[in-house]
Amino acid sequence: MAILTSNATNGAHSGHTNGNSKPNSPAELDAEKLIINLVDKPKPIPAPETLVFGETKTDHMLVVHFDPVNGWTAPEIKPYGPLSIDPSSSCLQYCPNVFEGMKAYIGLDGEARLFRPEKNMQRLASYSKWTRTIQKFDQDVLLTLIKRLILVDKRWIPTKPGYSLYIRPTIIGTRSSLGVRHSDTATLFVILSPTGPYFKNGLHPISLLAVSNTVRAWPGGTGSHKLGLNYAPAFMPQIDAASKGYDQILWLLETDCQNGENGKELRITEVGAMNVFIVVKRDDTHLDLITPPLDGTILPGVTRASTLALADAHTSGNVTLPGVPSALKIYTHEQPLTMSQLSSLHSEGKIVEFFGVGTAAIIAPVDRIGWNGGDLLFTQESKDGLGLIGRGVFELITSIQTGRTKFEDWSVSCE
Amino acid sequence: MAILTSNATNGAHSGHTNGNSKPNSPAELDAEKLIINLVDKPKPIPAPETLVFGETKTDHMLVVHFDPVNGWTAPEIKPYGPLSIDPSSSCLQYCPNVFEGMKAYIGLDGEARLFRPEKNMQRLASYSKWTRTIQKFDQDVLLTLIKRLILVDKRWIPTKPGYSLYIRPTIIGTRSSLGVRHSDTATLFVILSPTGPYFKNGLHPISLLAVSNTVRAWPGGTGSHKLGLNYAPAFMPQIDAASKGYDQILWLLETDCQNGENGKELRITEVGAMNVFIVVKRDDTHLDLITPPLDGTILPGVTRASTLALADAHTSGNVTLPGVPSALKIYTHEQPLTMSQLSSLHSEGKIVEFFGVGTAAIIAPVDRIGWNGGDLLFTQESKDGLGLIGRGVFELITSIQTGRTKFEDWSVSCE
Repeated sequence: MAILTSNATNGAHSGHTNGNSKPNSPAELDAEKLIINLVDKPKPIPAPETLVFGETKTDHMLVVHFDPVNGWTAPEIKPYGPLSIDPSSSCLQYCPNVFEGMKAYIGLDGEARLFRPEKNMQRLASYSKWTRTIQKFDQDVLLTLIKRLILVDKRWIPTKPGYSLYIRPTIIGTRSSLGVRHSDTATLFVILSPTGPYFKNGLHPISLLAVSNTVRAWPGGTGSHKLGLNYAPAFMPQIDAASKGYDQILWLLETDCQNGENGKELRITEVGAMNVFIVVKRDDTHLDLITPPLDGTILPGVTRASTLALADAHTSGNVTLPGVPSALKIYTHEQPLTMSQLSSLHSEGKIVEFFGVGTAAIIAPVDRIGWNGGDLLFTQESKDGLGLIGRGVFELITSIQTGRTKFEDWSVSCE
Repeated sequence: MAILTSNATNGAHSGHTNGNSKPNSPAELDAEKLIINLVDKPKPIPAPETLVFGETKTDHMLVVHFDPVNGWTAPEIKPYGPLSIDPSSSCLQYCPNVFEGMKAYIGLDGEARLFRPEKNMQRLASYSKWTRTIQKFDQDVLLTLIKRLILVDKRWIPTKPGYSLYIRPTIIGTRSSLGVRHSDTATLFVILSPTGPYFKNGLHPISLLAVSNTVRAWPGGTGSHKLGLNYAPAFMPQIDAASKGYDQILWLLETDCQNGENGKELRITEVGAMNVFIVVKRDDTHLDLITPPLDGTILPGVTRASTLALADAHTSGNVTLPGVPSALKIYTHEQPLTMSQLSSLHSEGKIVEFFGVGTAAIIAPVDRIGWNGGDLLFTQESKDGLGLIGRGVFELITSIQTGRTKFEDWSVSCE
């Protein structure tokens, strides 16, 4: 591996050349070929309290290009800076862009760790295959490269509790032609951003406006894929919700049913860019934890899967959620949840928690849902909005993420 | 206006500075500020017959940046080349990108003309407002700038009949932050590509595969907006259709109805990236021309609107479609069209034409639709697939586009 200290190659890349490739064997993604090209003058690191999610980037990024003839170029860790992109490039014109959200944490032992990173690698590979930019890559190799990047910029990982280094692997299509056709050339890059709590004023309950006239995801659509194109259509509804005093959107989808009004029901799908959970009191004093099923309209979130797994592990006695009595059983359900069900459960006083989950925020408790001209209010046990289960899951996940608690192989060292 | 001949400023832009702007008055888009920076060495122009749609770009492009504080930078016509884009830029991450497709034509008089360009300006303004990148710009000024760009690269407009210069105005969001929020900074650029007939072997009938498991557009979605993000989800279905021997996709949408199977029907929405028309024989020997209504799932195409308007003008006697008897009336209908209606009309032998329309292809006649494991076949009157109405519309539109026929103010000179 060559380590360069000049940054002469920063900025535009001059094409997808690969000296080692043969005509019939496109080069694989190869961590052995990594070139590290460090900044001449590292940037000062801002005080953690001043960080706004996604604004600050670290000194370096990982960039590697792909085309089907030559395969992968040598991966390069280089100074963070602009990419050189043709104006006709597919990524700007037709948007076959996929990304992942991950985080690296510094534990008390000073080690940098990732949380279930293989799940992000699987998703990234699956979605880039779906958009037809990259049919296949070695997920372990990409993870190795991401770990190298994190170690290069390790000084950027905040050590303050609740803070972490957000990681954004991205694959963009780079075919430079205006004919509407898939892009079989691509650039994969990974950028890093030190971050604190997702919401500016730290953990606190958020309000949602239930929206059904704009639809985030549809059967036969792309809602279950982490594609950049799923996000821009939410911008206008989000501004509208904010103007009405709500923090985020509760996305609904009108579907058929036998019992609903006019044979229709409004299913709850996601919260902003997060998966959604409710906790319901059962008659037997135990709890139900409900989230919509992965029916093609729901993103298969890593935090969603982790929340379900930890609740199951609590109920089966494999782990105890902090603060949750071990005798209290949490029965998990992946099942459709409609606004009329939510309203009924709410009026019966059975909903004890409503929260969104995602990599960026981990858990976002909800205290108010605007719906049908009124508000459904959820009483909070504490100022930060977390209830028994939300807090238990939040604390256990952050404990695993920082290496304080070991749970299966969820926490992966970068060192 | 300053005309520079050096290309020293090609490539990356160094920020959105604008010397003239005051803190409280963001600069307007201003054609008087245009900077023209010509290439040192113009590229050779390829033979028209070798052109593949969207592959070849001309020598120059128009670029102008926007931010809400400074407003618009001075527009610049500069050598075609890569843009410098931050890896965290909204255009790559969340895809609030909008574009237009237009064409410039050289008439027998040697003049360069645009076809109904104000419609494209209106759409571009409407969609960039919707994505919240640019709330407003002077559409006449942008059109003036586009005309200037076309005149700078006028030698690139092919004079061969059926050939033209394809124009791609694009607005991309450039906010450089990973927080999911609208991008209120943007870059507007216009690139040009000389082009022949959209389909490689010239005008000929195409085949369609009717698809309902992937859905292009849905109520509450973005199908009626010319957003880049509407196109990538079609890549995989398009590859699948091609592997089954079909040229393009006939997009369907399952909707409720009272008469359909299980209370459902499959509505025909679009053909590939084109609007769709059928021509149906009436019992009174006249014809019906039917296209789906602009219900939010259909792109309001300029060629769609022009086809309807010319058919109406023929029927009212204001114009005669070439080759169509003036006594033959064409009754236009913007109404839903379902697969079961299509099948019935087809089995009754009433469908005399089925075609897609769009700026790139103008008219694409269809001879075969794969559906339910079989094929609906449409007999063609001629080798190129055009029927009476398709040919009449095609010939009149191209005659207006090249200035041979004057119709209202549809043809606009660039000179």
